[in-house]
Amino acid sequence: MSYEFRITKTDNNARLGQIHTPRGIINTPAFMPVGTNAAVKAMSPNEMKELGAEILLSNTYHLYLRPGHEIIKEVGGLHKFMKWDGPILTDSGGFQVFSLSPLRKIKNDGVEFRSHIDGSLHFLTPELVMEIQAALGSDIAMVFDECTPYPATREYALNSLKLTTEWGKRCLKAKNENQALFGIVQGGVYKDLRKQSAEELINIGFDGYALGGLSVGEPKESMYEMINYATPLLPEDKPHYLMGIGDLLDVLEAVSAGIDMFDCVMPTRNARNGTLFTSRGRISIKREEFKKDPEPLDPNCGCYTCKNYSRAYLRHLFMSREIQFREEQTLVLKNNFHALDPLNP
Amino acid sequence: MSYEFRITKTDNNARLGQIHTPRGIINTPAFMPVGTNAAVKAMSPNEMKELGAEILLSNTYHLYLRPGHEIIKEVGGLHKFMKWDGPILTDSGGFQVFSLSPLRKIKNDGVEFRSHIDGSLHFLTPELVMEIQAALGSDIAMVFDECTPYPATREYALNSLKLTTEWGKRCLKAKNENQALFGIVQGGVYKDLRKQSAEELINIGFDGYALGGLSVGEPKESMYEMINYATPLLPEDKPHYLMGIGDLLDVLEAVSAGIDMFDCVMPTRNARNGTLFTSRGRISIKREEFKKDPEPLDPNCGCYTCKNYSRAYLRHLFMSREIQFREEQTLVLKNNFHALDPLNP
Repeated sequence: MSYEFRITKTDNNARLGQIHTPRGIINTPAFMPVGTNAAVKAMSPNEMKELGAEILLSNTYHLYLRPGHEIIKEVGGLHKFMKWDGPILTDSGGFQVFSLSPLRKIKNDGVEFRSHIDGSLHFLTPELVMEIQAALGSDIAMVFDECTPYPATREYALNSLKLTTEWGKRCLKAKNENQALFGIVQGGVYKDLRKQSAEELINIGFDGYALGGLSVGEPKESMYEMINYATPLLPEDKPHYLMGIGDLLDVLEAVSAGIDMFDCVMPTRNARNGTLFTSRGRISIKREEFKKDPEPLDPNCGCYTCKNYSRAYLRHLFMSREIQFREEQTLVLKNNFHALDPLNP
Repeated sequence: MSYEFRITKTDNNARLGQIHTPRGIINTPAFMPVGTNAAVKAMSPNEMKELGAEILLSNTYHLYLRPGHEIIKEVGGLHKFMKWDGPILTDSGGFQVFSLSPLRKIKNDGVEFRSHIDGSLHFLTPELVMEIQAALGSDIAMVFDECTPYPATREYALNSLKLTTEWGKRCLKAKNENQALFGIVQGGVYKDLRKQSAEELINIGFDGYALGGLSVGEPKESMYEMINYATPLLPEDKPHYLMGIGDLLDVLEAVSAGIDMFDCVMPTRNARNGTLFTSRGRISIKREEFKKDPEPLDPNCGCYTCKNYSRAYLRHLFMSREIQFREEQTLVLKNNFHALDPLNP
């Protein structure tokens, strides 16, 4: 196994670390920009590099449906396809069949669902999900999980975590030896179920552990409670990944609980809607007050956007619906990780 | 005047040249990418440079309406606003009030029109158009012209050219001394009127001459006839600019008639619709045949897109409606100017 996680500094539960992979080092805590369809919206791989991204996330569900994993395999794998030579983590599709498919039937063997694109019927099993991720050639694969909705009864959440444990075993068995595989802790908002899920997964043994099924509608306090409770249950020497969360305050809370990895479409989606993150808080760039504002978006940020453009120009691009209006958010999020400076060596 | 046009080579009517401006040299024939709203769609200024663009075009009409030329002036002018330090040509708005405004009343003094954005009423005069272009701070300004529609009676075309001449005089009088100013030859599809228009403008004396009112619905033969007839009437020692035309075959025809400058949204618009230009002709990237095609879009092209991506990936981006699917066209158009190699020194 050529994957290794090294912790370089700790502060209570929080830690700085490095994930070593055959395709490069990921400094943690790391925010993974999301390239759902093998492309981070509006950004070239070079731009993602410049912006400091060390790993991208892409989606098994989307790429399986379009263009199809066989095609990507045939033209040389996901890295070559999208021309990103750094590490890629692929999500397993468990969350997408839950959030995107108009119909989902959970069976012991897998999940039957309809494509959100053309309504066609598909059946994903743990084995197929691993086959797809192997075809894509991602560096870190995720187990196929059953994402517990909110609200869910204790009984539902228990069944859901049991299924996720079973599928985790099957995924590990089917996994490609060149990929790292992370397990996903479920259990809804039930502490004892989170504990049970974590223990079952640790017994199986994965290269990293994720918290799933959070930010699916539960109150923020429940989410924080689960993060603060469940993260310290995970093996200290493995990466801890909080799935689908990218709100800056949530990220800081989670880092202090011991989370190392994040992903979320929120930075890019917000940017496209005109909400920009800065070191002084959020800015809605649409606001009249920025019409003639010659200042950069964030005077404390050294990114290309902040070094070169005025708020007046960004507002103009947004009002004119120009496509350039893009991902300065991820930049700022990255920038905001500097808030973790006390942790820095 | 720090603008100068030097012809470096000729072949019958065709010529290679250089327009020297305070902001840099433009090698001609030149295709000017269009940044309507102070932004070339989906492209950063750095990318435009890399792609070989030496001048950009932006639109007086659009920037006057949004964000307003005073705002752009206040934050330091168009170059600073959009962070492009090379030359910029601004179109005068004559064509846009003709093609975009839901209502247009032509008076001797100017044009009353309604904004295509919010329906508000505006009145553009030659003097105001020069004031706007001065506020924007473009390097090459265009006279305010009355774009003759097609079809148009001889009488209409005659009045239209007379008005354009009168407005040309007024623009010259109102012009900023730091800007070059080009006249616009009108006359519809009437040869003698094109001649009259050219002569009247030459008598006034401009820094360059454009052919306007072409590709507005007339048959292609009429367009070619007008280009081949009118271009040689223009002063040999000044740049010749064919407005709004960017079809590759049209460009080649026009270059052989003596045209030096072009602009058109066609390359970018076609790209966004999936029609890509290559040195072997057009490709509709949507087609099933490209689904697994590992070849670059154009094996003869050395651009970033062609060096890095397969047709299979470009097709996938298009089918997934990703924004990256952008301006490789301009690249290829640039590339296709290499077809002019016999002219090259």
